[in-house]
Amino acid sequence: MNLELALRMTEAALKQAFREGAAVSVAVVDEGGNLVSFQRMEGAEISGPVLAQGKAYTSVALRRPTSELPALAAQGGELAGLAGAGFVCFGGGVPLWSGYGEGERVVGGVGVSGGTITQDVACAEAAASVWGAR
Amino acid sequence: MNLELALRMTEAALKQAFREGAAVSVAVVDEGGNLVSFQRMEGAEISGPVLAQGKAYTSVALRRPTSELPALAAQGGELAGLAGAGFVCFGGGVPLWSGYGEGERVVGGVGVSGGTITQDVACAEAAASVWGAR
Amino acid sequence: MNLELALRMTEAALKQAFREGAAVSVAVVDEGGNLVSFQRMEGAEISGPVLAQGKAYTSVALRRPTSELPALAAQGGELAGLAGAGFVCFGGGVPLWSGYGEGERVVGGVGVSGGTITQDVACAEAAASVWGAR
Amino acid sequence: MNLELALRMTEAALKQAFREGAAVSVAVVDEGGNLVSFQRMEGAEISGPVLAQGKAYTSVALRRPTSELPALAAQGGELAGLAGAGFVCFGGGVPLWSGYGEGERVVGGVGVSGGTITQDVACAEAAASVWGAR
Repeated sequence: MNLELALRMTEAALKQAFREGAAVSVAVVDEGGNLVSFQRMEGAEISGPVLAQGKAYTSVALRRPTSELPALAAQGGELAGLAGAGFVCFGGGVPLWSGYGEGERVVGGVGVSGGTITQDVACAEAAASVWGAR
Repeated sequence: MNLELALRMTEAALKQAFREGAAVSVAVVDEGGNLVSFQRMEGAEISGPVLAQGKAYTSVALRRPTSELPALAAQGGELAGLAGAGFVCFGGGVPLWSGYGEGERVVGGVGVSGGTITQDVACAEAAASVWGAR
Repeated sequence: MNLELALRMTEAALKQAFREGAAVSVAVVDEGGNLVSFQRMEGAEISGPVLAQGKAYTSVALRRPTSELPALAAQGGELAGLAGAGFVCFGGGVPLWSGYGEGERVVGGVGVSGGTITQDVACAEAAASVWGAR
Repeated sequence: MNLELALRMTEAALKQAFREGAAVSVAVVDEGGNLVSFQRMEGAEISGPVLAQGKAYTSVALRRPTSELPALAAQGGELAGLAGAGFVCFGGGVPLWSGYGEGERVVGGVGVSGGTITQDVACAEAAASVWGAR
């Protein structure tokens, strides 16, 4: 992860947010879960600094899109109660992989918060697609 | 609990992880819930420091394998909402008892995170069996 | 405060960092102390997410440049022990005022961390001068 | 950083602790500040899980031995009040560098707690010397 790429991903997420008519925050973290960049659009909730970062961190820490977590973290799910451990367990966080197949590893994550979950996911995926095309 | 035994338990958990093809973190805590040893395998998630420790702590704090907690902590369960209090309420944590029968007490716990829940439980039980045979 | 202005301030801070040969993190917060933007340059310390945000927050919270705080927060000073309350009490944070004279209020803050204190202050002031010229 | 090397460093720190007659905890973190290994000797304080990890993290986050921090973080120092931001600002944490000269970066850190500061520093340096000779 580096700042230039983080900003390009953020730009893609914000463009998607404009298309969605949503006001969001976008966080990008590195493989250690430490923040690289953050942007909160005008009018976006002040929960963004917590939730967008939390989603980005969680997607790296658990190596999954956070959109997979509601089912896993729900009552009866494999990771029931995960949210209580400080992870953000709903959609909008996407891990970024070093490559494909053998030896791939998570080298960062993006998290979006402020819209509906569907909007947040769309924005995070727009960011991740910049990563995939890097 | 002492460090030598904690390391032997950890070794057993890691061996099981190799057999399972999982990359895990293993934490051992004492009867106060305080960390005695921790090891994160190469390639294991950075959630390991949080979740393996959390499982070990939780197993001591509630004197149960954390695999029993999903049912108890679920909505309508006896400990509903427990996860929100910072306990890790899914499998992979196992308490370690001083002995059997009357007067037994929990003197430590082991927590494993990084594989599937089934794998984490298998690794934690491999560690606990070293304890049982001490 | 808004994102566009925060990014222009950040750009000014980063340009100053390049001139200084420093690798820094730059945080901008709004009047509520909540993060608006953050950027960590390649090679900047992972303390940046904590310290740059902390300086920006502290400058808003206390309505002073954080460079004034070492004297105030020192033993025997007017705000002795302030650092222990979670504020970052050394240079690199600058509050942003709505205007001059009567009725002025703090509407945001910028925090820079990663260089020497002198460098951090120079970068934060470069950002603040964009604000002043808005 | 990897587990095998972390364990060799830990062993060196513990050997030094035996020589010093000290009971310590030893933590090793990676470049993201996330825990790789931890060992607490029998009889070592329960502050070890907090302080040894804190020193290791701080040495990575600030890219300095934590033994340099008392002067910097003291009243009148450049980083006065740093401790209040959650960093551990006394000796026993040592950053581990990727190499020497241009392009070197911090890729991990070791932290020791439980003895006197002098003992903790000696143990951390014993660990770091294993890293230097890797």
